[in-house]
Amino acid sequence: MTPDAVPATSVSSDFRRGDGRAVDQLRPITITRGWSEQAEGSALIEFGGTRVLCTASVTEGVPRWMRGEGRGWVTAEYAMLPRATSTRSQRESVKGKIGGRTHEISRLIGRSLRAVIDLRALGENTVVLDCDVLQADGGTRTAAITGAYVALAEAMVWARKEGLVTGQPLTDSVSAVSVGIIDGIPVLDLPYPEDVRAETDMNVVITGAGEFVEVQGTAEGAPFNRGELDSLLDLAVAGCAELAQIQRETLGE
Amino acid sequence: MTPDAVPATSVSSDFRRGDGRAVDQLRPITITRGWSEQAEGSALIEFGGTRVLCTASVTEGVPRWMRGEGRGWVTAEYAMLPRATSTRSQRESVKGKIGGRTHEISRLIGRSLRAVIDLRALGENTVVLDCDVLQADGGTRTAAITGAYVALAEAMVWARKEGLVTGQPLTDSVSAVSVGIIDGIPVLDLPYPEDVRAETDMNVVITGAGEFVEVQGTAEGAPFNRGELDSLLDLAVAGCAELAQIQRETLGE
Amino acid sequence: MTPDAVPATSVSSDFRRGDGRAVDQLRPITITRGWSEQAEGSALIEFGGTRVLCTASVTEGVPRWMRGEGRGWVTAEYAMLPRATSTRSQRESVKGKIGGRTHEISRLIGRSLRAVIDLRALGENTVVLDCDVLQADGGTRTAAITGAYVALAEAMVWARKEGLVTGQPLTDSVSAVSVGIIDGIPVLDLPYPEDVRAETDMNVVITGAGEFVEVQGTAEGAPFNRGELDSLLDLAVAGCAELAQIQRETLGE
Amino acid sequence: MTPDAVPATSVSSDFRRGDGRAVDQLRPITITRGWSEQAEGSALIEFGGTRVLCTASVTEGVPRWMRGEGRGWVTAEYAMLPRATSTRSQRESVKGKIGGRTHEISRLIGRSLRAVIDLRALGENTVVLDCDVLQADGGTRTAAITGAYVALAEAMVWARKEGLVTGQPLTDSVSAVSVGIIDGIPVLDLPYPEDVRAETDMNVVITGAGEFVEVQGTAEGAPFNRGELDSLLDLAVAGCAELAQIQRETLGE
Amino acid sequence: MTPDAVPATSVSSDFRRGDGRAVDQLRPITITRGWSEQAEGSALIEFGGTRVLCTASVTEGVPRWMRGEGRGWVTAEYAMLPRATSTRSQRESVKGKIGGRTHEISRLIGRSLRAVIDLRALGENTVVLDCDVLQADGGTRTAAITGAYVALAEAMVWARKEGLVTGQPLTDSVSAVSVGIIDGIPVLDLPYPEDVRAETDMNVVITGAGEFVEVQGTAEGAPFNRGELDSLLDLAVAGCAELAQIQRETLGE
Amino acid sequence: MTPDAVPATSVSSDFRRGDGRAVDQLRPITITRGWSEQAEGSALIEFGGTRVLCTASVTEGVPRWMRGEGRGWVTAEYAMLPRATSTRSQRESVKGKIGGRTHEISRLIGRSLRAVIDLRALGENTVVLDCDVLQADGGTRTAAITGAYVALAEAMVWARKEGLVTGQPLTDSVSAVSVGIIDGIPVLDLPYPEDVRAETDMNVVITGAGEFVEVQGTAEGAPFNRGELDSLLDLAVAGCAELAQIQRETLGE
Repeated sequence: MTPDAVPATSVSSDFRRGDGRAVDQLRPITITRGWSEQAEGSALIEFGGTRVLCTASVTEGVPRWMRGEGRGWVTAEYAMLPRATSTRSQRESVKGKIGGRTHEISRLIGRSLRAVIDLRALGENTVVLDCDVLQADGGTRTAAITGAYVALAEAMVWARKEGLVTGQPLTDSVSAVSVGIIDGIPVLDLPYPEDVRAETDMNVVITGAGEFVEVQGTAEGAPFNRGELDSLLDLAVAGCAELAQIQRETLGE
Repeated sequence: MTPDAVPATSVSSDFRRGDGRAVDQLRPITITRGWSEQAEGSALIEFGGTRVLCTASVTEGVPRWMRGEGRGWVTAEYAMLPRATSTRSQRESVKGKIGGRTHEISRLIGRSLRAVIDLRALGENTVVLDCDVLQADGGTRTAAITGAYVALAEAMVWARKEGLVTGQPLTDSVSAVSVGIIDGIPVLDLPYPEDVRAETDMNVVITGAGEFVEVQGTAEGAPFNRGELDSLLDLAVAGCAELAQIQRETLGE
Repeated sequence: MTPDAVPATSVSSDFRRGDGRAVDQLRPITITRGWSEQAEGSALIEFGGTRVLCTASVTEGVPRWMRGEGRGWVTAEYAMLPRATSTRSQRESVKGKIGGRTHEISRLIGRSLRAVIDLRALGENTVVLDCDVLQADGGTRTAAITGAYVALAEAMVWARKEGLVTGQPLTDSVSAVSVGIIDGIPVLDLPYPEDVRAETDMNVVITGAGEFVEVQGTAEGAPFNRGELDSLLDLAVAGCAELAQIQRETLGE
Repeated sequence: MTPDAVPATSVSSDFRRGDGRAVDQLRPITITRGWSEQAEGSALIEFGGTRVLCTASVTEGVPRWMRGEGRGWVTAEYAMLPRATSTRSQRESVKGKIGGRTHEISRLIGRSLRAVIDLRALGENTVVLDCDVLQADGGTRTAAITGAYVALAEAMVWARKEGLVTGQPLTDSVSAVSVGIIDGIPVLDLPYPEDVRAETDMNVVITGAGEFVEVQGTAEGAPFNRGELDSLLDLAVAGCAELAQIQRETLGE
Repeated sequence: MTPDAVPATSVSSDFRRGDGRAVDQLRPITITRGWSEQAEGSALIEFGGTRVLCTASVTEGVPRWMRGEGRGWVTAEYAMLPRATSTRSQRESVKGKIGGRTHEISRLIGRSLRAVIDLRALGENTVVLDCDVLQADGGTRTAAITGAYVALAEAMVWARKEGLVTGQPLTDSVSAVSVGIIDGIPVLDLPYPEDVRAETDMNVVITGAGEFVEVQGTAEGAPFNRGELDSLLDLAVAGCAELAQIQRETLGE
Repeated sequence: MTPDAVPATSVSSDFRRGDGRAVDQLRPITITRGWSEQAEGSALIEFGGTRVLCTASVTEGVPRWMRGEGRGWVTAEYAMLPRATSTRSQRESVKGKIGGRTHEISRLIGRSLRAVIDLRALGENTVVLDCDVLQADGGTRTAAITGAYVALAEAMVWARKEGLVTGQPLTDSVSAVSVGIIDGIPVLDLPYPEDVRAETDMNVVITGAGEFVEVQGTAEGAPFNRGELDSLLDLAVAGCAELAQIQRETLGE
């Protein structure tokens, strides 16, 4: 541990979270598996007031540039309903183009899921994960990753039943959580009011085995030091372990 | 009744609906008022397997071309999640343009709601009704109109409480239902499997007082005659009367 | 006739139309068949000051999603020149997107023509009907449908001569007219100044045999009752019968 | 004359034009002034089978970047109906973008008209010239310029009558014609079949006073020499003198 | 020479160019061949402060509409970096569409290069010439053509070495220069400050053999006469002869 | 240091980099300050074969949503020339939309620069940093950030000279570098061939004072553990310290 990594939680002992949670406590998490009657896999996931509908659509075949290689493809699309937020935003379909934030999050979800699937075991099949935010209260991208894994797992059960895949393409589970520093204190799972106050904001994607898939830390205000980074990673590792457990329970494993 | 309007139901007495309903029976209707914690008004409406999330967003001011006239504006946007249907469709935001069907339905919803609101009593305020189809099983546009009315009514309660409007801008309620002819039989409230089989398809929008706001009948297969048209209108009038009653109960009137 | 259908024309006997026509009288109709030297079929149609150039383009083959089914395809595109109207509108090509109204009318024209053609008898050929409004004075969509039928009929003559089709794919003729209620009076074939005043506006598409293909009625101001609806349909049926006769004469049938 | 300018017509004396015209002869030219009842100025111009509808729309005010400078603005938009040509092209509004050729021609027409108008005398008014090709048989851009001048002149008469302008903003007339080299022979006013065969293709825009506004020569096959260039310019100067005379007659000057 | 062609240079003998050049003198020209390590051919060309990076990309195959005809294809794309100019312009990628000027210049470059290449000798290969303006000080399109030829020639050396082509598809060299009339004086190679002052502006594309590929003259202010046109062509012919010599030296011919 | 952080370099001592560098060695770095004669600040930066032209454009005023708050704005746009890479990509301006990767990198550059500027000290001025990749060989986003800082610093010198800003808005310098794990070995500053082989890829943005602005680590193949993460951060901290020194020398500080 570098010398400047004085445990941040000791710095201002009188910090209180708006919703009364401990700094290392997740919001209430609810995952409703199979919410959609149409998709091959689906989950409505709630992290407090954040609600994301995740569906997994399985189709035979892969994009042209991958054909004949014996590998499948997994991709994701993230979007937000116009009134998911406290003020209405214009629809991206109406604007005629997708914004940078949407692009960035869609790519992040896709990479995160591909990290725990063996594309060769998937065979030449494509899975599209749609993550639509019905209501937003911070942490929508991490809720989306956590819910999309459940939808994907459910879709793999379907695909084995249908004979589209034979083995188990999933190599591990994956979940994600946001962490941040507020008034110098590292905290876990930020709702929107905390998110806007955070000096540093980090999204961490972690496998069921506890290894990192993505670490995306951003100094919103002041730059952060190595000690702060370490504290944030510690919180995220613990938070994702809890999420992985909830995923297992939801999937009846 | 014109002479050719022999009651169509007598023609083939052995017609059976897939879900066992009578020809003049609605699917189970559920309206969850206030589903969204963010919007000024909202309703999650279900017509059988069709689920539409309707939100009403109220903002002060009107579009530039209406300013200073002392009138408000009500508009609507309809969209479908990519996996609301049995096979996934491409997002309109990804395509970069809105399709004709989406445009057409958005305009229909907007016109229908404007028919029961006094824009002068609304004052220079704008209401946007977003109707997002979370799951589609036929009749999404009529469910959207019926749910959007509830969201709008709830938003008007909010607006009066906030002092944005003083009187009651709503002049009546409005609801909508689809009717169609299948194997020569006029039926009410078609789920998707019936919708694809229908020779004629009609969407009817009716006020609480039983008057017509929109009548949109389309011969999908063979043209239809005046008697068939009359039978369809009869079914729609009765169906919308039931929907108006459910709306009243939902709103606690 | 339902009880509330007191003949609307009796209500205000002193109603006068701006152009002196009777309430059930069409504007002067002119159809110039074969106006284009390039298209397989064409007609320049005039409903008073409304002028629409309709061309039918026939190509062998059908869209990819229909191949090998032995059926043809008929589709339509409607557009308006920027200065067809009293003030100039921006071109949709310059805006980079097609508006909702354009989409809606294009789809209506396509459906209307497909109602009178046997796609199987057409064989795997595609007909595109382009309806470009050169000058607009109300009723452009109904003029477009009426003219497009003539262009389509001419194109079918060409297709038989070329050996592309063998039988007669057309099963009937089709025409359309607008009707509306002005100051409580149902009137036929509304020019633009009447269109903006109308409380209710209806476009009706009717086959040569007098059956309905489309009924699209919209309450622009107050909702309308069953009696008003019936009066409007009566006017439309009579108007389309006249239009069908003019079409027959134009085609030399 | 430069030494290499051996008169090209002497080279192959047996050259025959498909339509029997002399090499220096225009196609039949027809200009129908005031074709549109809506626009401030209009002309339907025909160069043989090429038909272009030109309208001039006058509005008070200028684009934001020109305000307060006391000068007006003249701009043009060119477009082609999808079936103006022997095979149908996709609409640019449907493609969602304007092609390079359309852009290029719109800009050419705008520059050509601005060359004969005193923008200061026009005052802070804007004229948009819409040139829509209804039927194309070569030379559409030169017909558009020639017709747009008539529409513009008519609009200036209207503007003086309305009191929008006081003097005469037009400083001269302007017309345009295409010339080209076919089988080594310079010819005037090429219809489409000649246009595709031409080795060199030139569009020349000339004022009523006989001076050049635009010279756009392109070697489609082999490069051309100074002598050929001179011969083409001679043909164009003579052709535009004829067109200027027809414009004067149309405008009753 | 036509009678009105009094040599324009005699008119105002006291004309001075801002950079001290003679009226018939090019700016300093630098061509850095092979600037790119990635492209099959490249050149960074400088005309004074104008800097254009030209790359030639060779790929096997041709667009679908040309397949099987045994001919290759050469096309070009021109673009300007947002801060190539004295004030920043918005990126066309951000606007979502390409402007008319960009389209026009891209097409001009493509046509100019195709004039000196035998597409049959090129075989079914495609060459794309990208001309990106890194810094703009007038004459960017003519610099682009002159540099693109060097990139293309280098790419043909590569293609012969790779065995993609056997003979020499290039039939000549090509270069381009701008000429214009300022205060009545014809001048060669206009930098930006001269360009904005010019009454007439002409871009001329000439082969190594001294023949014309493109002549594009535009009256920005007053129309120009035949004598002025001739003087401008004389200047351009001499300027391009110099450029052709620099191209030959750069290519080591 | 967590227990699993066995120094990765000890694992496979025979690892050799393609260009002979040590695992902790940067490629040759060249920064040409003031490359552009047009921009208020500019730098052409080279990390080996990667060449990025960075310009800073300063304008008075801020976007509408920030007006009157006394703060300035700094934003960035990243783009790649179509043939910056070994095979040509289609231009985003031609596609009509910006890809997710471009969006993501533009946002990253903007955030990174804003981390070292006091927007209040900047006053109501806007700086746009354009980072155009002329040649790409890995690490284009990190080269862009490092070069953009130099362009920004130069622009601030200009802004003080012009009196647009009074103090020094820059609070520190910022640079960035990529690190990754190849065959289990953490390495610094990956060229393209290493980038495609890397199991984990991380971009780190660090201030002159050695604090973190962004940490973006992605598992491309297998997830990574805490020890690997720590080793990568160590490499990045050292690499950025070198880059900061080169920036200081370039700026003559």
